[in-house]
Amino acid sequence: MAVSVFVGGSVDGYLAREDDALDFLPPGSGEPHGYAEFWASVDALVIGRRTYETVLGFAEWPYGTKRVVVLSATPLARAAPPAARIEHMAGAPADIVARLHASGAAHLYIDGGLTIQGFLRAGCVDRLTVTRVPVLIGRGIPLFGSLDGDLLLEHVATQAYPSGLVKSEYRVLPNPKGARG
Amino acid sequence: MAVSVFVGGSVDGYLAREDDALDFLPPGSGEPHGYAEFWASVDALVIGRRTYETVLGFAEWPYGTKRVVVLSATPLARAAPPAARIEHMAGAPADIVARLHASGAAHLYIDGGLTIQGFLRAGCVDRLTVTRVPVLIGRGIPLFGSLDGDLLLEHVATQAYPSGLVKSEYRVLPNPKGARG
Repeated sequence: MAVSVFVGGSVDGYLAREDDALDFLPPGSGEPHGYAEFWASVDALVIGRRTYETVLGFAEWPYGTKRVVVLSATPLARAAPPAARIEHMAGAPADIVARLHASGAAHLYIDGGLTIQGFLRAGCVDRLTVTRVPVLIGRGIPLFGSLDGDLLLEHVATQAYPSGLVKSEYRVLPNPKGARG
Repeated sequence: MAVSVFVGGSVDGYLAREDDALDFLPPGSGEPHGYAEFWASVDALVIGRRTYETVLGFAEWPYGTKRVVVLSATPLARAAPPAARIEHMAGAPADIVARLHASGAAHLYIDGGLTIQGFLRAGCVDRLTVTRVPVLIGRGIPLFGSLDGDLLLEHVATQAYPSGLVKSEYRVLPNPKGARG
């Protein structure tokens, strides 16, 4: 069982500009950097309502028939396309992880700025992959948010790609008691 | 001639905690990661008044007999130790770079949070080396600051070290006219 975050952003740590624009990312994500293999290994994607509504505005539903869990304290106002496999859940990250694991999902993929931050803060992420695009944009929506204490990481692997992408994979270590913060 | 920044921080982009503490860094910078070689190649270190005064509080002057330029709009209130090689300058980053190059310094090392941000914003940095320590600390003093436009980088090399440090070197490309920002 694993709970993964797989994010990309600028070298100065932004996943998007302040207006959500992603124009600083290379077209088509630059080049293959393991995302397809990662995606194929995922049993369920967990996103928040904001990401869900953004994605509903796309010309095409991007998640195929992958199981998608939308976290929202309120009912989802907008319906997903017929082929989409959507579930609505609400609750704390640890509860969501437990319910999904109980339902047979061995590998969860947590995505969306606030959802990622909430799962990290709750200590519910095992694996963190960060890909840096070679640019400084100076301001934007940060990749990471505040925490209640340090999260120690263990470096697993780093790979640099010809286009300048640098991808680092980490394991998130269990939060030690008495961590500062 | 080159103007370099060589910084380290957490994976979530902080060079220190909010109270300047560096306790999240591994003892002794973790392991050799090229800093000594970099330092040996530097002709002059450029720091701000705040870094200068912090360093004066150390038990020992850390810069040996390396030429150190302290930027300050006002005279330096505190004197450096006798062996230190200190110059006081004031001015815009481009002027400082021009004066130092004219004085024979071919390789400048810009250090200190606000000084780095000012030189990056002014487009006066050629080489950027960022070393990431495997931890998320959630809040602190950011490695990078706001910019007037994007700074495009060219990836030169990335190296991962056994302790989990990941060092990436970039060239800073000339700022294109009409850059967004």
